Amino acid sequence: MTENPLEIVAELILLLALILIAAKIGGEIFERYLHVPAVLGELFSGIIISPFALGGIRFFDRFGPLFHIPTELEVHGGILETVESTLPVEPQIFFVAQLAAVILLFEAGLETNRAQFLRWIRPASGVALGGVVVPFLLGFFGTIMFGFASLDSINDAVPALFVGAIMTATSVGITARVLADIRRLDSPEGVTVLAAAVIDDVLGIIILAVVVGIADEGTITASSILVIFAKAVGFWLGLTIIGSLLANRISRVVLWFKGAGAHIGIAIGLAFLAAGVAEIGFGLAMIIGSYSLGLALSATDLKHEIEGPMRQVNNFLMPMFFGVIGMQADFSAFGGDESEATLLTAIGFAVVLSLFGIVSKLGGAGLPALFVGFNRTGAWRVAVGMLPRGEVALIVAGIGLTSGVIGRDVFGVAIVMTIVTTVMAPVLLVPAFRGGSGLREDDEPEESESEPLAAEPEPTLPSGED
Amino acid sequence: MTENPLEIVAELILLLALILIAAKIGGEIFERYLHVPAVLGELFSGIIISPFALGGIRFFDRFGPLFHIPTELEVHGGILETVESTLPVEPQIFFVAQLAAVILLFEAGLETNRAQFLRWIRPASGVALGGVVVPFLLGFFGTIMFGFASLDSINDAVPALFVGAIMTATSVGITARVLADIRRLDSPEGVTVLAAAVIDDVLGIIILAVVVGIADEGTITASSILVIFAKAVGFWLGLTIIGSLLANRISRVVLWFKGAGAHIGIAIGLAFLAAGVAEIGFGLAMIIGSYSLGLALSATDLKHEIEGPMRQVNNFLMPMFFGVIGMQADFSAFGGDESEATLLTAIGFAVVLSLFGIVSKLGGAGLPALFVGFNRTGAWRVAVGMLPRGEVALIVAGIGLTSGVIGRDVFGVAIVMTIVTTVMAPVLLVPAFRGGSGLREDDEPEESESEPLAAEPEPTLPSGED
Repeated sequence: MTENPLEIVAELILLLALILIAAKIGGEIFERYLHVPAVLGELFSGIIISPFALGGIRFFDRFGPLFHIPTELEVHGGILETVESTLPVEPQIFFVAQLAAVILLFEAGLETNRAQFLRWIRPASGVALGGVVVPFLLGFFGTIMFGFASLDSINDAVPALFVGAIMTATSVGITARVLADIRRLDSPEGVTVLAAAVIDDVLGIIILAVVVGIADEGTITASSILVIFAKAVGFWLGLTIIGSLLANRISRVVLWFKGAGAHIGIAIGLAFLAAGVAEIGFGLAMIIGSYSLGLALSATDLKHEIEGPMRQVNNFLMPMFFGVIGMQADFSAFGGDESEATLLTAIGFAVVLSLFGIVSKLGGAGLPALFVGFNRTGAWRVAVGMLPRGEVALIVAGIGLTSGVIGRDVFGVAIVMTIVTTVMAPVLLVPAFRGGSGLREDDEPEESESEPLAAEPEPTLPSGED
Repeated sequence: MTENPLEIVAELILLLALILIAAKIGGEIFERYLHVPAVLGELFSGIIISPFALGGIRFFDRFGPLFHIPTELEVHGGILETVESTLPVEPQIFFVAQLAAVILLFEAGLETNRAQFLRWIRPASGVALGGVVVPFLLGFFGTIMFGFASLDSINDAVPALFVGAIMTATSVGITARVLADIRRLDSPEGVTVLAAAVIDDVLGIIILAVVVGIADEGTITASSILVIFAKAVGFWLGLTIIGSLLANRISRVVLWFKGAGAHIGIAIGLAFLAAGVAEIGFGLAMIIGSYSLGLALSATDLKHEIEGPMRQVNNFLMPMFFGVIGMQADFSAFGGDESEATLLTAIGFAVVLSLFGIVSKLGGAGLPALFVGFNRTGAWRVAVGMLPRGEVALIVAGIGLTSGVIGRDVFGVAIVMTIVTTVMAPVLLVPAFRGGSGLREDDEPEESESEPLAAEPEPTLPSGED
């Protein structure tokens, strides 16, 4: 490794080029030929080029492996040691990926329709609650069942809490993308799924904060949970309420700027600020900060100015984030230096956790839907719409991995669960939305084909292009 | 400093938020109230928040200074030492700024009209040559005159070579922006300035490569210069010719992708690749790689697909780059631990170098223009159009600073020269383009007001917004 900072930058920019191009190729292949969301292909590309797979192989004598797990200099007992970093990529590339995550969740918040969100929030909250509690419990007990955690002590139980937290996520982005593709974003089921996904995110994020707090403190008391809970809810509610109250003022201040591209620059700057404050000031994940700010700004004039440009920025940043996330999955950790039994256990855990991931969301979100106005058709649509874990689960899993709470093996299992549930959603959603109304209406026979929604064109899945 | 990678990221994202927001505010104020290009305001914001100015002050007891010069662990003679980094910002933020520079120059190459460029390249090359040689010589001898370099040995002369290289730059971006604002991009003077600015960049980049090569090897022989020259010209010509021959094929391959935002993602990935190969494979600046690729792709269908999105990406990245560049200027280094005379010398040097920067471009580019078809009006327009140094000079100066060839004092002087010449260009360009034709036509009286160009609307400077 050379000392010239520009040569280091050049080496890293080459790696970033490979991550970006590989992710785009993977995304294109998955979307065009496998008809699943591009994000999955980006993820797979990352897994393939990771230092644990192809990227770690030395193809030619002259060149080292494409990626190597970075090392850090540390002083232990007065002796300088080279230790393996907890990150599979250099800090510079990790930083770029994190910027991408913050901007992605800012956009997700921004694209939420706050008016409809507020109208459907009451029925949606039942769906969301069931869709969080059941997956959390199944994830928690599944992890203990397979011996990756135990109830012996708080510390032993922490990985199970983390897997539970990963299981609760619902991806706003993927659900919305699929519903937009089949033109059902504004159907009762569509709005309910989106509102529930948002509440889900918030609940999931609170769970995440509680779990991280427990992991940090290593002890669990009712009062400490209460403090963490109050802090998480308080920060989120505070930022959302203050943000919403000030949203139009913020919007006007930003729109005062007239320079080319000033709006998106300032908006992203504010998202960075909210992200940094969430982590430094409140110990919450950075994405909570940028997501909450986006939600607060989602009903302002500023939103209309920046949502187009934001999409372009994300088109370029997102693949790097998902590529880097994929690179963190170490399936070889399944084997490890342990016995063959460990590998089988991990594979079994992956299969069972994926099943749990599907069943828990279908049941947890679908059953409550039956009690808030949907018939069985509608409840099934809502339940399927809640399936994809997408980027939110990946981010939560990444936090668990980089903070050392879960190992690369459990992380790999979580990635498998994420991939399985996310692949199933578009596959099931398109047929689920064929046919009649999903509303339980007492003045209309349940099997009626004549209600307004049925007049819409038969949904089909177009081939990409936003 | 904590060990948790996510907390480190959060601290850096806060700094990046401040850089971005400060740059946007500075750019807006400069553009709206001072009527100079926003880039200068972004630069000033960077200077103001740098660790050498406001950013280095400790305002509250609880918080450290906003920015601190990062330190690195190094082992000297078996002893671990903390040394001050050559970068004024953390490597992660420096990396993001460098990505921005690579993407910015890719866009500059992309937006060049290659057909017009080729048509005007012959007359423009005389303008470019004069606009490179004269500034280089004045910069070189000016630096020696003020004692920042000497002719005693090759090593002593290197800073003068570097200042010469900085003086040769012409900013394609700023010139094009101003000419577009006054709708004279396609006038004979406009195209000549742009073509000359491009040749200028290439010549300047070759000079830079030679200077960096000399600085690296510490010795100068005719053959080593020849090797460096051949490598630089060879790489640039090779990339441009191969790139141009393959441009339509590359364009077709990229356009095969149909996924949302795939085009811009792949294009930026290729720009990163070209940048990395330029530095690692040929020892050239990364921006040469991305600029050449952009130029090669400037006549393809791909260009039309991505130029809009590229502008949005740059709107968000550019301020961070110029902000970070500004943060590298250390005017306090003028004082330093030396005598008062040093401060006065540096200020004198800054004044003289700025004057040299103006006179050398006006004469060096303006006189040749008189011999390639322009009358005195046209030659003045061309000469003024060549004035702004903009981001190219800043990048070259940054390379000199980070590679240790020039000190922070000389860097500060180069920044002053850049600011002065860049401010003067729009101020002079708008009045210069008022009035009749700038072409020397033998079949038409020189003062004629009736030629086609005069029919265009009177140029005025609109208030920004691309």
